[in-house]
Amino acid sequence: MSWLSIPAESHFSIANIPFGIISTSSNTKPRPAVAIGEHVLDLQAFAEGDGFSQSSDIQKHIEVFSQTSLNAFAALGRPVHRTVRSYLQSIFAKDTNHPKVLKDNQKLQDAALLKREDVKNHLPLTIGDYTDFYAGKNHAFNVGCLFRGPDNALQPNYTHLPVAYHGRASSVVVSGTPIRRPWGQILRPGNKVPDLAPCERLDIELEMGMFICRENAMGSPVPVEEADEHIFGYVLMNDWSARDIQAWEYVPLGPFTAKNLGTSISAWVVLADALEGAKAAGIKNDNEILPYLKEKNEKNVLDIDLEVEIITAAGTKNHLSKTTSRNLLWSWPQMIAHHTITGCNLRPGDLLGSGTISGTEPGTEGSMLEQTKGGKVPIQLKNGEERKFIQNGDTLVLRGSFGSGEQKVGFGEVSGTILKPLPLFK
Amino acid sequence: MSWLSIPAESHFSIANIPFGIISTSSNTKPRPAVAIGEHVLDLQAFAEGDGFSQSSDIQKHIEVFSQTSLNAFAALGRPVHRTVRSYLQSIFAKDTNHPKVLKDNQKLQDAALLKREDVKNHLPLTIGDYTDFYAGKNHAFNVGCLFRGPDNALQPNYTHLPVAYHGRASSVVVSGTPIRRPWGQILRPGNKVPDLAPCERLDIELEMGMFICRENAMGSPVPVEEADEHIFGYVLMNDWSARDIQAWEYVPLGPFTAKNLGTSISAWVVLADALEGAKAAGIKNDNEILPYLKEKNEKNVLDIDLEVEIITAAGTKNHLSKTTSRNLLWSWPQMIAHHTITGCNLRPGDLLGSGTISGTEPGTEGSMLEQTKGGKVPIQLKNGEERKFIQNGDTLVLRGSFGSGEQKVGFGEVSGTILKPLPLFK
Repeated sequence: MSWLSIPAESHFSIANIPFGIISTSSNTKPRPAVAIGEHVLDLQAFAEGDGFSQSSDIQKHIEVFSQTSLNAFAALGRPVHRTVRSYLQSIFAKDTNHPKVLKDNQKLQDAALLKREDVKNHLPLTIGDYTDFYAGKNHAFNVGCLFRGPDNALQPNYTHLPVAYHGRASSVVVSGTPIRRPWGQILRPGNKVPDLAPCERLDIELEMGMFICRENAMGSPVPVEEADEHIFGYVLMNDWSARDIQAWEYVPLGPFTAKNLGTSISAWVVLADALEGAKAAGIKNDNEILPYLKEKNEKNVLDIDLEVEIITAAGTKNHLSKTTSRNLLWSWPQMIAHHTITGCNLRPGDLLGSGTISGTEPGTEGSMLEQTKGGKVPIQLKNGEERKFIQNGDTLVLRGSFGSGEQKVGFGEVSGTILKPLPLFK
Repeated sequence: MSWLSIPAESHFSIANIPFGIISTSSNTKPRPAVAIGEHVLDLQAFAEGDGFSQSSDIQKHIEVFSQTSLNAFAALGRPVHRTVRSYLQSIFAKDTNHPKVLKDNQKLQDAALLKREDVKNHLPLTIGDYTDFYAGKNHAFNVGCLFRGPDNALQPNYTHLPVAYHGRASSVVVSGTPIRRPWGQILRPGNKVPDLAPCERLDIELEMGMFICRENAMGSPVPVEEADEHIFGYVLMNDWSARDIQAWEYVPLGPFTAKNLGTSISAWVVLADALEGAKAAGIKNDNEILPYLKEKNEKNVLDIDLEVEIITAAGTKNHLSKTTSRNLLWSWPQMIAHHTITGCNLRPGDLLGSGTISGTEPGTEGSMLEQTKGGKVPIQLKNGEERKFIQNGDTLVLRGSFGSGEQKVGFGEVSGTILKPLPLFK
């Protein structure tokens, strides 16, 4: 219930208050903002206009709202994030105790309350390291079957530890950034030597991403019960994957050029606090797991409704998939505990991906590889089009939200359009 | 030939001029410096004292010498690095044309010319992404034999593409930083479930590291013939490895917690220009490789003499290994060309590792895993000590250099001492 008009079913209800980095045509400097309904609140302008004057706890930190990334804000820790989110909710509340701050302050509204369609989004945090987990058990099984057959689909370690690999941080981009179809080494069936060609099996990976806010010292693992305090918030993630390149390169050290071509994330970071109500149990692990991974509270996976849409170059919008982020074998605190068990230091701004999230039924797959059974069964689209993998000009859109109505907490979307490959350079 | 007294066989001859980041007890702000003989030249103090006044080409960039990392200097590009190195060589030359700058300027010597033993070294660049290649063919073969047997030692892709994986940037540390023996998941022979225990097979990996100076746009591969201009310089690298943890976790996505515990690099970046004379051919690749990896000049691997020493807790110094960095199947330009072939953007400060460098003869191994044949044959040390892997309190020292006498170009060393593991947290 806000004095600001917020459309029904908006992802950015007053219950959300997600943080991002924006710029505008009249002020091209990237700066922090929160999304609310069809608007954003420019936090630098809000701070400069004494918007935080009613909270001395926030006022002493307002320099973080003139940074070009959210790293400094994230590093303040969850108690401060909580204070800022609550404060902003109180400012936007219909019955706000501080109407002079914004509700009845046309000057500050003019300076700080912008239409969301008028702002440009930037990467919300400067990402130090990006790690991609593989916690989506159904996906791991499905892809394992395709790559190695059902007998070796899940490796013996899979249910004992959250499998992960280091990803590429430099090519993580914000929603809306076009992705160039890559050239790469491909070994054709029946051939003994690879050739260099544009990827023919370009795919999505539907994932959740999580940003770290609290640093642990190198050599000091994070206990699983303390891991929650290291979580800044969440985004949707599409880890673009070149399946034909991946199949040839990934043994023995894992995917490399097949993944470093680009990873897209949604623009607005939904704070961990905004998703407390979405906590749920994930996929049951029948193994007895080691104590450092055991959680007292098993509801540490999020229950976000996820969906994938493909918009073809011809302009038709086609539903591809629908699932939930409960489809994870390992929770976010478990991922942090395992990531740091040998002493790895996580830093504010580090991004952890869940791994691709798929359900068990047809229509719940988090990748086209799974949905087309390895590129064998085409997906039928509108106007007689079909797809095995992504074509040039296709736009892939991932959406995710929790709850409904005036309490809906959503991520908006992460989208990316595939550009045709470059002509081959010599 | 310098007016400054430089010991014979110094790694930091006037032919070298390597760059690093230092601080001192009287000025704790990290700042750029070059090493020369037993001294370092504090470049911030040198610039502030008009040291660069004889070069307008450098003078316009002197703000980079007051940064806390070398990233801004690196980003200026190789022509500028070349100009700065040549200028500093001319300032230190016995017959310098500019004696008033430093040679006869006691005041600036007092301010900027420091004893190397009095400075603290910091990480020379802020590392965005760290990628570890696997180009040491002898090592790949040796380890492949131990992990998968001789028939599958080298995977079919090995001679077609420079295999690599993304490493962990946050835990790259400068020489001298102690490394904590990690706890991790270990599957014992004969067991079906892992336990959590301190690593028992902690090892070194003798590598060269290379820093990127020029950015390529995402989606735009770097042609192999242009890759040289993207190379800032080189360091020695020790990629600490927990072999028992690695063996259990690395299938199918590659090493993760077994490597993210720490990677040590030498403090001084030897510029690519200082190593032009060290260029040599690497290991011959009998495959016909794809055109994007073909180089006109095949001498694109460096011929650095490398050695490993272990200093035990008891204080004995023991030679472990001696080899050369020619033992690579893939050159540095080939690594860059492959890293970017699918469009990955490299940025100034990104670190690329060569992979472990081993020769083919006993005593040339770049890891203890190889030298002890998988931990079976102990290495005999002085005073009756022996090692299969690293023990607590051991210090491992890697050294590397090229040439001799007054033209020697060396890296100094990269060292690290292993601390006993933490008591197990609950």
